[in-house]
Amino acid sequence: MTETPETITAAVLAIGDEILSGRTRDTNTGYIATFLTNLGIDLKEARTVADDEEAIVEAVNALRSRYTYVFTTGGIGPTHDDITADAMARAFGVGIDHDPRAVAMLKERFPDTELTEGRMRMARIPDGADLIANKLSKAPGFRLGNVHVMAGVPSIMQAMMDEIAPTLRTGVVMLSESIRADAKEGDIAVPLRDVQKAFPEVAIGSYPFSDEKGFNTNVVVRSRDEARLAEAAEAVRVMLAELKR
Amino acid sequence: MTETPETITAAVLAIGDEILSGRTRDTNTGYIATFLTNLGIDLKEARTVADDEEAIVEAVNALRSRYTYVFTTGGIGPTHDDITADAMARAFGVGIDHDPRAVAMLKERFPDTELTEGRMRMARIPDGADLIANKLSKAPGFRLGNVHVMAGVPSIMQAMMDEIAPTLRTGVVMLSESIRADAKEGDIAVPLRDVQKAFPEVAIGSYPFSDEKGFNTNVVVRSRDEARLAEAAEAVRVMLAELKR
Repeated sequence: MTETPETITAAVLAIGDEILSGRTRDTNTGYIATFLTNLGIDLKEARTVADDEEAIVEAVNALRSRYTYVFTTGGIGPTHDDITADAMARAFGVGIDHDPRAVAMLKERFPDTELTEGRMRMARIPDGADLIANKLSKAPGFRLGNVHVMAGVPSIMQAMMDEIAPTLRTGVVMLSESIRADAKEGDIAVPLRDVQKAFPEVAIGSYPFSDEKGFNTNVVVRSRDEARLAEAAEAVRVMLAELKR
Repeated sequence: MTETPETITAAVLAIGDEILSGRTRDTNTGYIATFLTNLGIDLKEARTVADDEEAIVEAVNALRSRYTYVFTTGGIGPTHDDITADAMARAFGVGIDHDPRAVAMLKERFPDTELTEGRMRMARIPDGADLIANKLSKAPGFRLGNVHVMAGVPSIMQAMMDEIAPTLRTGVVMLSESIRADAKEGDIAVPLRDVQKAFPEVAIGSYPFSDEKGFNTNVVVRSRDEARLAEAAEAVRVMLAELKR
């Protein structure tokens, strides 16, 4: 028996009416999913809620108690519909006020005449939070407990993830191999299930797709153990070759 | 006082490890968001969970009790990792078995020799469910209570939404107008908040973006009342024009 390595889990919470109305396509969650996979952190759940304090509070409290890390996107700008910071303070039961460190960051970008009441809203940070630097437009995100609060603009969110990454505990990276079956999913289902039974500790997924030649399937084999991954992938390839004989 | 029209709400539940690993980008949720907005149905929440029965059961039970409709995508194919139908049966506390109507649909497509044990899995339907026709590849989705269970392949999901649409109660369509501010969000935040205060029943959202000219903002005004929408949008335009003088 080898020791089971620690599993590090995460959830993403996207905040914004514009995603739920369909006006804006959420590309942030997919970006974060790939980013975390590359760090060996398992993204277990993603949620999107509206710009609604009650909904944000309830979602973040559900997720932060369940997963190692939570990453939120959206709702930390200067306008009246940016309510994420206040919602986080309420979720954690802490106060919120203009943070001198955040004000100093904004002053790097804006002369006093441009530091409007709206922009000063972006310096409202819940008590006890660490700031997350924003190299693009200065207004910071923040970390409160295990929750990382980031901007919704993709370029800014991505820069913030780069700031956060070195602070995260990381796991053993999940390795994967994708095998194009050149067969319909229904034709490989039973033999694939048997391969899965033979390799219970390897995750074998089956993903149908269609192209100009019709329905086809990608089989994805995933494991943190390189040798077991290779064995299971080979078993899938042998199974597929036998089907075609 | 005009009568408040009925609000019809919805949630989307995307099911699949491949979305959470970042391997597959979820385009279904955005498609459904736009589809529902066009029907006057308010999408209030979206979740993504893994191919994990416990996680699916918990999510669907949380969502179905809260919203008028739930739409799920993914996990109804023929392979061992397709567990959505069984999870739905468990969530509703009903049995599940091969459904003669679903078997008949599969037989339209597959000769008996190709109706493998795997493909027959796609005819497993929870007791009491109505089927959702699949014009593309026959294997049906189903409706159980207020939950609509659809395929994850986008083309099939979209065909299923077309089947479902006529069965849904629809609301008054939310109208919207998008106004490009040609200003930074921080410069319009305070006057925009004042416009929002003047039109409390109209939703005014502010969405920063950046292009080659730098940071900019789209203001989106949303209402189900055409006249109020026009008044609020005009107030935003007047405010923006005054800022530029």
